[in-house]
Amino acid sequence: MWLELDILVKGGIILTMDERDSIFHPGDLWVKDGKILSIRKSSEENLPVEAKKIIDAKGCLVLPGLINSHTHLPMVLLRGYSDDLPLKEWLFDRIFPAEAQLMNPRSVYWATLWGCVELIKSGITCVMDGYFFEEEVAAALSRAGIRGVLGQGVLDYPTPDTPEPEENLKRAREFVEETLNRYPLITPSIFCHSPLTVKKETIVKAKELCSEYGIPLQMHVSETEEEFRQILYQEGLTPVSYLDSLGVLDPEFVSVHLVHITDGDLQTLSQRGVRVVHCPESNMKLSSGVARVHEMLQRGLVVGIGTDSVCSNNNMDLFREIDMATKLQKAVFGDATLLNARDGLRMGTSLGATTVGMGDRIGSLSEGKEADFIVVDLDRPHLFPIYDPYSLCVYSLKGSDVRDVIISGRVIMENKRVLTIDVEEARAKVGEIVRNIRTDWFHLEGEG
Amino acid sequence: MWLELDILVKGGIILTMDERDSIFHPGDLWVKDGKILSIRKSSEENLPVEAKKIIDAKGCLVLPGLINSHTHLPMVLLRGYSDDLPLKEWLFDRIFPAEAQLMNPRSVYWATLWGCVELIKSGITCVMDGYFFEEEVAAALSRAGIRGVLGQGVLDYPTPDTPEPEENLKRAREFVEETLNRYPLITPSIFCHSPLTVKKETIVKAKELCSEYGIPLQMHVSETEEEFRQILYQEGLTPVSYLDSLGVLDPEFVSVHLVHITDGDLQTLSQRGVRVVHCPESNMKLSSGVARVHEMLQRGLVVGIGTDSVCSNNNMDLFREIDMATKLQKAVFGDATLLNARDGLRMGTSLGATTVGMGDRIGSLSEGKEADFIVVDLDRPHLFPIYDPYSLCVYSLKGSDVRDVIISGRVIMENKRVLTIDVEEARAKVGEIVRNIRTDWFHLEGEG
Repeated sequence: MWLELDILVKGGIILTMDERDSIFHPGDLWVKDGKILSIRKSSEENLPVEAKKIIDAKGCLVLPGLINSHTHLPMVLLRGYSDDLPLKEWLFDRIFPAEAQLMNPRSVYWATLWGCVELIKSGITCVMDGYFFEEEVAAALSRAGIRGVLGQGVLDYPTPDTPEPEENLKRAREFVEETLNRYPLITPSIFCHSPLTVKKETIVKAKELCSEYGIPLQMHVSETEEEFRQILYQEGLTPVSYLDSLGVLDPEFVSVHLVHITDGDLQTLSQRGVRVVHCPESNMKLSSGVARVHEMLQRGLVVGIGTDSVCSNNNMDLFREIDMATKLQKAVFGDATLLNARDGLRMGTSLGATTVGMGDRIGSLSEGKEADFIVVDLDRPHLFPIYDPYSLCVYSLKGSDVRDVIISGRVIMENKRVLTIDVEEARAKVGEIVRNIRTDWFHLEGEG
Repeated sequence: MWLELDILVKGGIILTMDERDSIFHPGDLWVKDGKILSIRKSSEENLPVEAKKIIDAKGCLVLPGLINSHTHLPMVLLRGYSDDLPLKEWLFDRIFPAEAQLMNPRSVYWATLWGCVELIKSGITCVMDGYFFEEEVAAALSRAGIRGVLGQGVLDYPTPDTPEPEENLKRAREFVEETLNRYPLITPSIFCHSPLTVKKETIVKAKELCSEYGIPLQMHVSETEEEFRQILYQEGLTPVSYLDSLGVLDPEFVSVHLVHITDGDLQTLSQRGVRVVHCPESNMKLSSGVARVHEMLQRGLVVGIGTDSVCSNNNMDLFREIDMATKLQKAVFGDATLLNARDGLRMGTSLGATTVGMGDRIGSLSEGKEADFIVVDLDRPHLFPIYDPYSLCVYSLKGSDVRDVIISGRVIMENKRVLTIDVEEARAKVGEIVRNIRTDWFHLEGEG
């Protein structure tokens, strides 16, 4: 009696990122019905298995798919549109007006699909996103075959999809109901923009709505010093203690950024089991500051890592983001042993999975988990010799080294070719959408 | 009468990085006898030119080749061998002993050649290097066809190539005499390791030797707080003022790192016209601190950028390094407008050229300059849409997007294929050299 696998990955260095940090070298990975059936050392024996698809991973690294825990995917339309400006000016004078002009269901769909090409090419198999017209983000992600936790954006200001702010929670509820159980890889969520842009009552009601459906609430918290000061002035509390006073902090609350926090805030976050997303490149580029990530990890907080939108980055290479995160902690907090490579990679894999609420299903390679993994070609001048696989991943690898991407047992990219998206079509659509913006603002006219 | 060019680059977006920030879009680049004969807007007219080689740059960016102003190339043998440790422990307990075991003329040659594959693949056309057996570095760089300013390492401690430290300057003089005028692309130099590892008299004599030959002296200066304190304790002076008291600071002095400096040091550096190399990733990874780069640039200092060795990085992607540099200034000095993308890219091109002493010959694209340039394929998901070419280069590009590399009018890489190096041979040699080290230290044994 032969066992028929869907996919057999043969002879790679399998970095499982499981709790024991198991490495199989060389190892085989068995996939059936979208899940990992077995991981084992490669053997010379003839085992009674056959596979519909064999992936030769000799000379390759096999890793859990990366998890980008904070994005605003449709903003790929504005990548590089506005840089080197302070956050407030950047956001209110440049980004918000451009979004008002550009964003509609159609543009959000195509922008997201185009963003998915970059995600896949960089080995990202799951994202936590927050934006407007989020049902279009869901549709595009599903078409691309990427896993997602997608939050409908809620602000108490007019937004591209909710010109009347008082409709914001009605809109969010419709999104959740429409999306729940609609796509196998998509979990709905709500994304409350920030304590400065969402009112007290709205935050409380959004949290109630999330609890009703058992879904996570995402929010930018303590991103800038100005936010910290203003909430302190208005409420007499830090942003974290303010949110705690509203009763919304719990393990289903995903707090993004947390750059400006007190020791007391850290304690509150630990006590409530709040999940955290660190976005180092965005915080650096907008000069928001540097989050105390090593302390959060020491306290046992769950910390994932996100690229934030490409407007404040401007790329979604999560290997580069993790590299930046580890080096930034060392540089700013004066200790080269802080946030080592292994812990950095955890933020993009196993810890990231818990951050997005799927720690039991993804983020590491072990029997019974979803078959979300990537194969990285090590035949590269910057990847040899190898002494430590974690160092290799964090300090040397780039997203462009990823060769194959498998999500839920489905081959999404093979030999660097994206199989689920018509890349030329997506690029052409994005080109059409930004054409007028390019005409106004494009700086590449001939000179000389 | 037809003009015969060696290379005609057609229809690219040419970012010249010249003093006027000229951009030709679309533009053509004419190359003859290793130099740029003309840069002009692409024209429909039939001009009386023909070319031995035509490079179609439609949909591509054409940039000056990147200049990596500080490397220790042979250390690619130890990439990832020791990470997440403080500088002193990392250097004295791990790196120096491993170097003593590994480094000899043969290993230095092959390691450098292997490092050159990464340099070329990342679009780096010129390096300033400092190491031991530097004549082997010169031989390998020449074989690869890369431009270099190469410094023979001088320490008052036993080193791999100079077990008797009192021979160090004799060794350096021999290197300079042997290398001067030997290879068309190589300029010799001397690399005094640091104020802590090289004695006063040796520094002075090394500078005299450099002056005799009209070549630059490179030195790590004020890299760590410990160095700063120790020199202050020993000499009653900061490292910069100590070196100034020796009379060695002038525009032919290349000071690397300069992390810990006073306002007075900044003034001294400006007055002497000292050239500076910033190595952000190395300084971050070893938690040395953050150099005041934006202030140096504001004062008109010439600042290039370097990856340092891959042991403290661990890659030589200079686009990533520039990205890190710009974001680090913004994050640490609290102003998102600091070190914008254009100035960042200058550090890797036009300013870099002046840093390595070739500002009149390379670093920007203009008539009469050396034909050192790269062609970057923009048909990538992370490179579209484009609003600003400098933002594109610094915040989105990766080394792996480089398609073609031309140095001194010679095609070194074409369509991502390195033409000057037998890549498989170099990899195999490096594999042999590190084999025993890998057996001792390789952590990738099967587990699970």
